[in-house]
Amino acid sequence: MVSKNQIKLITSLQHKKYRNEHQLFLAEGVKVIQELLLSNFVLDHLFVTEAIFQNVSDSQKTSIKEQDMNRITALNTPSSCLAIFKMPKETKIETKGLIVALDDIRDPGNLGTIIRLCDWFGVKQLLCSPETVDVYNPKVIQATMGSITRVKISYVDVNEFILQSPLPVFGTFMDGKNVYEEKLPAEGILVLGNEANGISAAVEKSIKNRIAIPRFGDRQQTESLNVATATAIFLSEFRRNSSGK
Amino acid sequence: MVSKNQIKLITSLQHKKYRNEHQLFLAEGVKVIQELLLSNFVLDHLFVTEAIFQNVSDSQKTSIKEQDMNRITALNTPSSCLAIFKMPKETKIETKGLIVALDDIRDPGNLGTIIRLCDWFGVKQLLCSPETVDVYNPKVIQATMGSITRVKISYVDVNEFILQSPLPVFGTFMDGKNVYEEKLPAEGILVLGNEANGISAAVEKSIKNRIAIPRFGDRQQTESLNVATATAIFLSEFRRNSSGK
Repeated sequence: MVSKNQIKLITSLQHKKYRNEHQLFLAEGVKVIQELLLSNFVLDHLFVTEAIFQNVSDSQKTSIKEQDMNRITALNTPSSCLAIFKMPKETKIETKGLIVALDDIRDPGNLGTIIRLCDWFGVKQLLCSPETVDVYNPKVIQATMGSITRVKISYVDVNEFILQSPLPVFGTFMDGKNVYEEKLPAEGILVLGNEANGISAAVEKSIKNRIAIPRFGDRQQTESLNVATATAIFLSEFRRNSSGK
Repeated sequence: MVSKNQIKLITSLQHKKYRNEHQLFLAEGVKVIQELLLSNFVLDHLFVTEAIFQNVSDSQKTSIKEQDMNRITALNTPSSCLAIFKMPKETKIETKGLIVALDDIRDPGNLGTIIRLCDWFGVKQLLCSPETVDVYNPKVIQATMGSITRVKISYVDVNEFILQSPLPVFGTFMDGKNVYEEKLPAEGILVLGNEANGISAAVEKSIKNRIAIPRFGDRQQTESLNVATATAIFLSEFRRNSSGK
């Protein structure tokens, strides 16, 4: 059974303000919860409608009815499990290797997909500007498919970080140089901008290397690629270059 | 004003059965409708809540109130315009160039993103297995951002097409060869499989070249890339190869 107070807490965690106040966030779905349980993330409480996650102690797990799950879920199609996890303490930012920096990404699905791409391509540190969508937004957690346990995500002033970093900085612009013709290093900062407006003017000033994915075909009318698919191609190019292929 | 019969027709067009019966489909949002109007697609009727699309004649355009738009929209946040377009007649399939074939893609957002990628990378023909989500699904039309006007999309038996085509066939598999090390041709068929199950066993048998995007990083636990982000990287590799970079 889920208590009135639990329902109140869970629905409040849909909002960033209350996530920060309680230092808790929600995860739904077997795969995501499984990956979080296997990682350094600390479980607060788990709600299940089926006999799953047998290894979680009864003191941390409550069996509930499907109709109760329908009341607490943020999904259109509820899963068999919903968990509350503790937000991890912020740790020191990785300043080496390939770093991805997001300048004001607003769509939760895009952020989730980019975290999954960072995981695939071995990017250990993802930086987000303060205006970027909250990584603990339930839709972001859902879209990461568990990759959030393997990528360090920090909210920082992206411009300040770039200015004090010795790493070469690459920004993606429509009028940038053909990425296929650039020599891309193994270590550097790759900056991606907002879905509608691209990289902000302030951050743009701090970027030396402007890169772009060339268009093909005759008509060339496609306005732009989605930021998550563009990130896929840029990360692929960085890793292909540094693997010497 | 929107009539009861119009409301009935429009809401019926949310479903594939009625789209096929009427040979009509819906488009919402200024950008998508604008691109469709500028293309070979034929407008049936346009509903607007503001004084936009002045070049569309009054016989084909109805001004409606926002509350009426709320009744006919399929979007969570309604736009200022909704249009009914005629489905184009099926034309001959392009059998040359780089062709993308989808074996049972179910997510409308993924299909929309892949159409946008085909447009960017100059892929003129997209083939979809009969089980692939309907391209005239309103969510697909929305996600294409107008690219649907520049990519030919045909529903065919993918295996049959592959077997009778002289083009080399490339399929994406987790255990495929490193795509960065393959010589990719300017003309060929790139096959992508279902979100959960990949390429079907029947189609797999007809594929000679198995390719994959290599994983990077130490832990290598990411299960797979999303099919749309994988398509982005594969199309980028095909075009980079054939542009000699």
